[in-house]
This record gives sequence, C-alpha cells and structure tokens, in this order.
Amino acid sequence: MRVLVFGAHPDDIEIGMGGTIARHVDAGHDVLMVVVTLPQPREERRREAADGARILGARLEMLDLPLESLGQNRETIRIFDKLLTTIDPHLIYTHWDQDSHQDHNFVSRAVITASRRNRCSLLMYEQTIPGGVVPGGFRAQSFVDISDFMERKRESILVHQTQVELNGGDWWLEGVRGRAMYRGYQMNVRYAEAFEVVKEIETHFGGRPARPER
Amino acid sequence: MRVLVFGAHPDDIEIGMGGTIARHVDAGHDVLMVVVTLPQPREERRREAADGARILGARLEMLDLPLESLGQNRETIRIFDKLLTTIDPHLIYTHWDQDSHQDHNFVSRAVITASRRNRCSLLMYEQTIPGGVVPGGFRAQSFVDISDFMERKRESILVHQTQVELNGGDWWLEGVRGRAMYRGYQMNVRYAEAFEVVKEIETHFGGRPARPER
Amino acid sequence: MRVLVFGAHPDDIEIGMGGTIARHVDAGHDVLMVVVTLPQPREERRREAADGARILGARLEMLDLPLESLGQNRETIRIFDKLLTTIDPHLIYTHWDQDSHQDHNFVSRAVITASRRNRCSLLMYEQTIPGGVVPGGFRAQSFVDISDFMERKRESILVHQTQVELNGGDWWLEGVRGRAMYRGYQMNVRYAEAFEVVKEIETHFGGRPARPER
Amino acid sequence: MRVLVFGAHPDDIEIGMGGTIARHVDAGHDVLMVVVTLPQPREERRREAADGARILGARLEMLDLPLESLGQNRETIRIFDKLLTTIDPHLIYTHWDQDSHQDHNFVSRAVITASRRNRCSLLMYEQTIPGGVVPGGFRAQSFVDISDFMERKRESILVHQTQVELNGGDWWLEGVRGRAMYRGYQMNVRYAEAFEVVKEIETHFGGRPARPER
Amino acid sequence: MRVLVFGAHPDDIEIGMGGTIARHVDAGHDVLMVVVTLPQPREERRREAADGARILGARLEMLDLPLESLGQNRETIRIFDKLLTTIDPHLIYTHWDQDSHQDHNFVSRAVITASRRNRCSLLMYEQTIPGGVVPGGFRAQSFVDISDFMERKRESILVHQTQVELNGGDWWLEGVRGRAMYRGYQMNVRYAEAFEVVKEIETHFGGRPARPER
Amino acid sequence: MRVLVFGAHPDDIEIGMGGTIARHVDAGHDVLMVVVTLPQPREERRREAADGARILGARLEMLDLPLESLGQNRETIRIFDKLLTTIDPHLIYTHWDQDSHQDHNFVSRAVITASRRNRCSLLMYEQTIPGGVVPGGFRAQSFVDISDFMERKRESILVHQTQVELNGGDWWLEGVRGRAMYRGYQMNVRYAEAFEVVKEIETHFGGRPARPER
Repeated sequence: MRVLVFGAHPDDIEIGMGGTIARHVDAGHDVLMVVVTLPQPREERRREAADGARILGARLEMLDLPLESLGQNRETIRIFDKLLTTIDPHLIYTHWDQDSHQDHNFVSRAVITASRRNRCSLLMYEQTIPGGVVPGGFRAQSFVDISDFMERKRESILVHQTQVELNGGDWWLEGVRGRAMYRGYQMNVRYAEAFEVVKEIETHFGGRPARPER
Repeated sequence: MRVLVFGAHPDDIEIGMGGTIARHVDAGHDVLMVVVTLPQPREERRREAADGARILGARLEMLDLPLESLGQNRETIRIFDKLLTTIDPHLIYTHWDQDSHQDHNFVSRAVITASRRNRCSLLMYEQTIPGGVVPGGFRAQSFVDISDFMERKRESILVHQTQVELNGGDWWLEGVRGRAMYRGYQMNVRYAEAFEVVKEIETHFGGRPARPER
Repeated sequence: MRVLVFGAHPDDIEIGMGGTIARHVDAGHDVLMVVVTLPQPREERRREAADGARILGARLEMLDLPLESLGQNRETIRIFDKLLTTIDPHLIYTHWDQDSHQDHNFVSRAVITASRRNRCSLLMYEQTIPGGVVPGGFRAQSFVDISDFMERKRESILVHQTQVELNGGDWWLEGVRGRAMYRGYQMNVRYAEAFEVVKEIETHFGGRPARPER
Repeated sequence: MRVLVFGAHPDDIEIGMGGTIARHVDAGHDVLMVVVTLPQPREERRREAADGARILGARLEMLDLPLESLGQNRETIRIFDKLLTTIDPHLIYTHWDQDSHQDHNFVSRAVITASRRNRCSLLMYEQTIPGGVVPGGFRAQSFVDISDFMERKRESILVHQTQVELNGGDWWLEGVRGRAMYRGYQMNVRYAEAFEVVKEIETHFGGRPARPER
Repeated sequence: MRVLVFGAHPDDIEIGMGGTIARHVDAGHDVLMVVVTLPQPREERRREAADGARILGARLEMLDLPLESLGQNRETIRIFDKLLTTIDPHLIYTHWDQDSHQDHNFVSRAVITASRRNRCSLLMYEQTIPGGVVPGGFRAQSFVDISDFMERKRESILVHQTQVELNGGDWWLEGVRGRAMYRGYQMNVRYAEAFEVVKEIETHFGGRPARPER
Repeated sequence: MRVLVFGAHPDDIEIGMGGTIARHVDAGHDVLMVVVTLPQPREERRREAADGARILGARLEMLDLPLESLGQNRETIRIFDKLLTTIDPHLIYTHWDQDSHQDHNFVSRAVITASRRNRCSLLMYEQTIPGGVVPGGFRAQSFVDISDFMERKRESILVHQTQVELNGGDWWLEGVRGRAMYRGYQMNVRYAEAFEVVKEIETHFGGRPARPER
C-alpha cells in the first residue's frame, strides 16, 4: 500500500498523525511525507523535518513552496496533481479543512481538489496542536491504535527543537498525549489518533478496485 | 469478517446496499441481515425478506418488533445490544440517521446507541428509495463497487413483489439503478453504492484491533 | 422571465443543468449562459461552448477571465455585479459552493456575493460530473422535471468533444443520466435535475416583487 | 393552488406566517390551516383559532390530537397522510424542524415523513415567537413580501387573547413585527416572512408537474 | 450565582464537568446537581451520587424518574419547568444534545425545551466517557480551567464504585484526564473542561439582566 | 477589560454591534474599534468612521489596508497578530465568518487565525445590514441587552452619511431596529444584539485566567 501524507509545515504531520505513520511503516506500507512550506529558520526546520521522518521510518519530500504563494490556487493544485500521478497512492492524509491556520486550510483544500478523480481514500487528521478554536466541530470518524508507537510519535515531535520551547515544552507534549489518551479510550486501547473521512474507496474489500477505469 | 446489517422493513437493505451485501458474501464474509419489523401483509413480507436474503447469500433474522413500539427506546436498544454481543461483528451497517421515514430513523439511532462501545466500524447506507426529501444532505463518504452484483441486487429487490407495483415497477428499479450509475461514475466503476461513515476502527490496518481491552 | 446561469468552464452548465436550461427556453424564458473562463485548447473550447448553448437554445456570453486571476476577489465580483445590473435577472443559477473544483467554488462564492442585494432567486446546481468527493453533503432541495429534454441535454454535453474521451465517453454520459434517473424517481418523473437553494424571492407569488424598492 | 399549513397549537401559524397566509388567500389560493392540538383552556383556544383563521381568510381544521400522544409516531403520521391524500396540496408549510418546543418539533418531523412521496413543495416557517434559543441556526431561504398584510397578521395574532398577556402584550407584537422588518429589509420591501426550504417541486415552471406519475 | 446542572444518571455530571462544578463551588456559587434517573443497583447508585456531589461541594437532587418514561415528552419537561421556576438559575448545564446515549440525549432536549424563556445561559458539557462515536462533531466553544480541581474531579468519579470496574478502572480515569489535558493545552492551562454553547445571556456584562421583563 | 472589535469597512461595526460597544464603554471597558479598509470616497469615509466611534465612546484605529490585497493571507494576519499582541484584549469581536461580503468574510477568517493562541474570548456579530442571503444559517448564541443604547446606535449609523441614501435611508435604520426588536424579545428586553460564539474563555469565572501560561 502506498500512503501519501501532506503537511503544511515541518512538525504538522508528526503532531497530527505520527503514530499512524509509524503503524503504516510497521505494516510494510510505503509512506511519503510531503512538507509543503519551509518557514524560518529554514535550515533548522529542514533538518528537523528530515529527523522527524527518519524516526517514523517514512520517506520525505519537501516542496518548499514560497509561503506567500500558498493558497487553493492553480499552481499549488498543479504540483499536488503531479505528485498524485507520480505516487499513485492508495490512501492520502491531509490537514482538517477547518483547521484554524490558513496554511493548513489551504493545503487541505488543495489536496481535496487534487484528488478529485476519487481513485483513492482520503482522510483528514485532527487539528494541529497548538491550534485555534474554530467555528466548526471536528468529526472524529476513523480511529487508529497507536499504543505501541506513542513513544516514537513523541520522539518525532521532540526533534523539532525550534518549536518545543515555543509551544510550551513538556506541557505541549502532554497536550498531544492527552488527546491520544482520550481517543484511545474511545476505541478501547491506550492511545489512538482520529481522522475525519473525506472518502473511503473499497475500504472493507482490500482497498482501491483492481479495475480503476470502468 | 462478521457483518451485521440492520433494516427497518423487508426490502430496505436490498435497496440500500444489496450489492455490497453480495460483495461481502462473495468475499467469504459472514453476513447477517436483521429486519426489525414486519408490516402488512405479514406473511408475504416475511417470505419476501427470506427470498431477498437468499438471493444475496446472507443469513436473515427477523426481529418482528411491534411497529407501534419502535423508537429510540430502551427496549429496542436492549434487543440490539444483545444481538451485538451475540454476533460480535467487525462491521455494522444501518439506515442513514436523517432518512425521512420515522422507522428508518429510529432503527438508525438505536443502532448508533447500541454500538456505543465502539468495538467495530459503523456505516449508514444511502436513503431508501422511494424516500422523502429531508432538510439535511447525505454525505457520501464510503464507496463500494457493485458492478458485478448489480443484477443480483436487482433480483433481490424484485422478489419483494408486494412492493414492486406500489413503488412504480420498472421505473422504481431504474431509480435504484440510476443512483448506482452515478455513484459508480464517481468512483471510476460501472455501479457503486455509497455510505456515510459513523466510525471506522483500524480500517486500513486489517480492522478491529487484536487487543480489544487496552 | 430573465434567467442568468454561471459556469466556470465550457460544459459545466450543460452537465449540471442542461435539462433545466432547455425547460426555461421551452417556457419562453430569456436564458443567458455565462462561461467565466476558457481553458486550453481555447479555440476548440470556445466553439464547443457555443455549440452547447445553441443546442439548448440559450444565449451565451464568454467572459474569458484569465484562469490565474479567478477567485472570490473584487475584480471578479465587479464583473459579475455589472452583469447582474445589465441583465437584471429574476433567477440566477451557479455552481454548488462546496464543489470540489476550486474554480467552481470561486465562481459560486463570487456569484453569492454579487447577488447580495437579494433582488432575485439564486439556486446552485448539483456538483459537476466528474467531480471529487467533498467533506460536505449536497442538499437537493429544488427539483425540475427534464424528462422531455434528457436527450437534448445529452447532445449539449456531447458537443464538448475535447472532454468526452477525457471523461470516459459513454460511461460519462451514463453517470450523468444515472443521477437524472435517481433525481427523477425522487420527484415522480423519469429524469430530473436538483438544486440547492440559496434564496427564493416570492417564488409562490409569481416571483420578484413588483415594487423592488420598499 | 391548494395550500396546506400545519401548526401544533392555535396561534403558531399566525405568528410564523400569518402574512403569507393572507398573501395566498389574496391570490385566490385555497388555504387550509391545520391546528394539531388544543391546549387548555380548550374552548377559548378553539374560538381563538377560529377567529385567527377567519381574519386571514383561510379554512381551518382542528385535529385535536391528545397532547400526550403527540410525537413522530405512526398514528400522527397516519392522520397527516390521510390529510395529504384528501387535500392533495401543491404546497405545504410546517414548523421549523429545530424549533425549541417539542410539539412544534414533532409536528414538523411528522409532516416531513408524511410528505415523503415528494408530490408537492414543502417549506418550514421561522421559529415561533416566543421560542427558545436552540443549538442550530435557521436558514432563511425563501422570502415573502407581507407589507400589505402586516396589519392583518397583527390582528390575527391579537385574537389569541389567552396568549397576549402571557407573552408580553404589545412588546410581543413588537418582537413579531421587528423580525418582519428585518426580513423585509433583506428582500427590499417593508415587511416579509422567511422560510427554510425542505423541497420545491417545479417551482419556476408553474409548480407540481402535470404528469405526476412518470 | 445559582447554577443548575442536569445529568441523566449518577456519574454523568462528574465525568462531564466535575472540575467546573468544583470551580463554581469554590467561587461561592450555589450549585444544584440534578440526577434524572436511578439505574440498577439503585441503592448503591443513590449513595454514589450523594458521595460525588459531596466531594464536589454541590447540592444534589435525585428526580428518580422511571427509566422507561424518559424522553422529550411533556411530563419530563413539566418537571424540569418546575425546577427552573423554583431555582431560577443564572446558568444551566446539560448533556450534549448529540451524545450517543438515548437518555443523555433526551435529558438534553428536554432541558433545551424547558429553558425556552431564555432567562439564563445554557451550556452543554462534552460527551460522557465512555460514549459512542456519533455522526455529528462536538463544538468546543466555552473553556474552564480545572487545573486546581482535577484531583477532586477524579475523586468524585471514583466514588461511583459500581462503574469503575465496568468502565476499565484506571484506564477509564486516564481517558477522562487525557481529554482534560488536551482541552487544557488548548486554553493555555494544565487541565480544562469544554462546553458547547446553546445561549449566553449578558455574559460579558455580569450575567442575566437586572430587568428581566422589558 | 480590553475589547478589540474588527470591521472591514466604516459603518460595519456600528450596524453589527453599535449597542454592545456602547454597553462596553458604559461599563468602563476599554474598546478599540479597528476598521480594516477605507473605500471611496476615502476622506468622507474616514471622517464618518471617526464620528461613529466618537458617538459610541470607543477608540478607533484605521488600518487602511489596500482593498485589493485583502484576504486570509499572511500579510493581513501578521498585522492582526501584531494588534493582538499590542492590545492583549480579553474579548474580540469580528464579522460572522459566513457573511456574504467577501471582505467581511476575509476579515473574519483572518481574525480567527490571528487569535489561534486562544488567550481571549472571540465572538462574531450578526450579518451586516444590508447583506446577501447565504447558504448557511447564523447561530444566535450570545445576547446583549442594548435597550438603553438603541438611540446611540442609531446615531452612530446615521453619521455614515455617504451610506444612508445608498442603503435606503429611514427604511435602512428600520431594518436594523427590527432585528434588534426581535433579538430583544428573544432575551426578554426591548432591544438586543446577538452573536455567534467562536470561543469563550473562563466566561463565568471573571474571564481570562490569571495564569495565562500553565
């Protein structure tokens, strides 16, 4: 199974679904993390992104799109389109489309547009932490047990050293862990991550159909 | 995989997801169709329900709850609870919770309540046909290719002879087929059925976790 | 009655509501189709748009706005504003505001903004085919019988020759027809098209009030 | 045109859409107001209901269903079904399905279920005044100019003498009038009433299709 | 300030908002916890409810309505109405109206109906734990810091001894604490509880207006 | 208490929440009105904005961002971020995020993003008048009594002389007053303004926590 994961900035993917990435890798799936932009300090962020992906065992591609050009625009969608064609994934993950950060929001919408041919499943991970309270409510629909990978998720977040202090240090990690405890209790395990579904294609029959074109 | 499917009346399940039932059976899954009530003429409806299930290859249980007692009440939920404990399904299907028919609605809500322990996935099939237009909008999220089973679905509906004339005969079947053509085109196959997700548990990792209790 | 219809690209209007256009024309209404952008290959698309409108019997205006400038921005809205003032329509149709394609989305939002004086009814046609699955659910509220115009709708789509192969040929047309069969069955006719309502002004009293200004 | 209007209690219809009733009557439409229950003091409420309907020029039917039996149950729906068959209306109005009062809510849901054959348009009038704030938001979609009938609406409410003092006298009427001023300004007239659409059938083509059965 | 809190069963309030109750009591507010029904084993549950309230420092009233009669019916609403009149609260809390348990759901709707005069603020606490995944998404809007009362909340839950083993013991408490950690991080404190708002009356001006009747 | 209020254009704030501004000022709160853009005729609009703020007793800051650059973009958010840091408000008000005007919409989204640290409460005022009907429904959740300040609100709107004639003169003011009458009746006072809640922080415990950083 080929899995494609989008995150606007380094650390977004680790926070939102680091445990699920590790689960995929552990299951032998081919996972490509795509980081869309590279904020300041660029070189540190770049290194941290590489470290995060390495810890989770996933491949990494940094698009490094200019921050100011980001949006649900044709150029971004064209780049995502090309990625989808090249990778031909069975499953895509992206930001929640109602996330409070404009970049998360834009990436999510562009991914939804780019996957308009409906050839694979598409899930949105829960709001990034920290994150602003927004008018809508996240619909936790799809749950993944990350009990065996919570520690690895934690490590993959901690390598984003430029962000740790900024976001509150240990207390930040406790916020992330708290949500995983809650989602875990909901699905009868110790730790879990939750997703809102955009689409699931043949999910209970082994995934994407063998004959993709009628 | 054990699959549990709820329908308020005979023919609801066939119309809503007959193709997906056939897919499950074809894949070797154990499918139990649960018909909750038995409207007039009771004996004919009972026979038709049995014929429908037989054509799709699924087992059938008729609860025969009294029509007037139906509702999101403790008694109905207690009966559903017991079914869930006995069957211990990996996947449950039920009516859309916003369906226009009060019985469909009640069954859906009672199933959602009864599966509150979140031990398995839960999907809602698209509104029954015929069906009234309602204030909300169905969110087609999960798609199943039924191209190879459209004919069997059609047959499973046609055995409900007491309903065929009532619902418009061929024209009825064309309504059902039309929706399958549209859903099929959406997911790049000839015919498909669509579902709204309540919850998916470990869907992309082989389903329900091996250790259900922390 | 003057009817104004917006579509982002040639063929969007035909797919979304070709039958309803024909109904309007047949009823003697003055219908202007407005195609906002002109993708590659420009000259072929231009000819196809003209053919589509001709078959449906509607007038056509091609705005030919540059693809890259499209958005819910002041310039687009200014142009739409001017169109509304010139035409002074009783009824406007546009894309569904949650359609997966960013251009459809932008056109829809710009039309909603441009018609902010609430002087006429405004409806959104169902998602274009093909189209990506999106997080929200279309609310089919307003239905139009197109049984006598299904064939004409089909022809109006087929003239978009550059798109036919791309979208799957016959199978594409079957997707479009399937949805019309389903919507038709819902409203007790053979074929229908459905719309989500933004606003209806004096709909059951002959439309727009005689005294528009208090 | 035959118009059927449902209200749970005497005065609900007058408050919610008295002006629109008067518009319909003025346009020569046949309007039947259906009052579902009769609270204490029964005889006064019955007289007031009759007076309200008389002032608006509509016919009245009082179902007088026992308050305690009200609900989205088979018995209520059976009675509504029969009414719909007898009257065969082109247009139905009912309470908003999210109104705070349980009786309003039940009537609305039962009407939606009873009109499941989709043979006519169905609109929901804005929340009754007084009324509790609820979790959802009313979607004002369909507007009717009642400028020439505001005074008549006022009179039709005032005849419900048992309710006037209870609801705050003049101040109550000002609450009703205030909303009509706001809705009026929105649609460019002095006073208006607003509705949320469940379904519109052939609205812009003269209403319900001539051939109701394919 | 008088605070009225509704819970369907003993332990619901402690789980949903035990920390906020303790905050209110600590602030000198008069808090009345209303437990609506008393499941088996009745005497143990009754004692546990008393212990929970005592630990939080709130008064307790057990309505002991028969489980089978619960619903959004006139009798329940009449009893709630009377409570509201007697207590005349400034602030009411109840279950989330989309909670998966039918009793929670019914209590919530009955409270919303009973507070229809809009004389005080009304908030809904987050879904009870354990609780089923439901179609809608909780909208966390109002946040309360419970950092200094997390331990007391924990104790108030633990006294419900009949429930502890049933719900998973320590693991249950960790699910509760996890959510509080997440909500706390969101609002920049250690632990928090979140609420969805039905209505806030004069919240930023000292609460309920001095002149309640125009 | 420090209160920060955002409006896209001069007069938006006065129309949406002029009464609540006056209430805040009357309560001794420090209110800063931020007007984001300055349409033509610039000098008149500037003077009118100053007059409006003066009448309400609030301070005013005119950002004068170029109309064409407005959007949920990094530059706008950066400017709002800085304002939030400088003022450090306890409470922020902004446009409704579904308002029909694109500028209102953009300001609202940028404010939601800028307040992503969740350090203060955030409310959205009801749709500006005049304003287009939009697909969503405003959720009136938070109510403020403006009975003693309705006249001042009226005056603060009337100073926007360039807009009065454009929007219908007295009839415009009656639209504004009508809505206040309706909202007032809902909350048992003469006139009120209503808000949809994004977030409330420690609202019933004196507002923003004393220890903002864990």
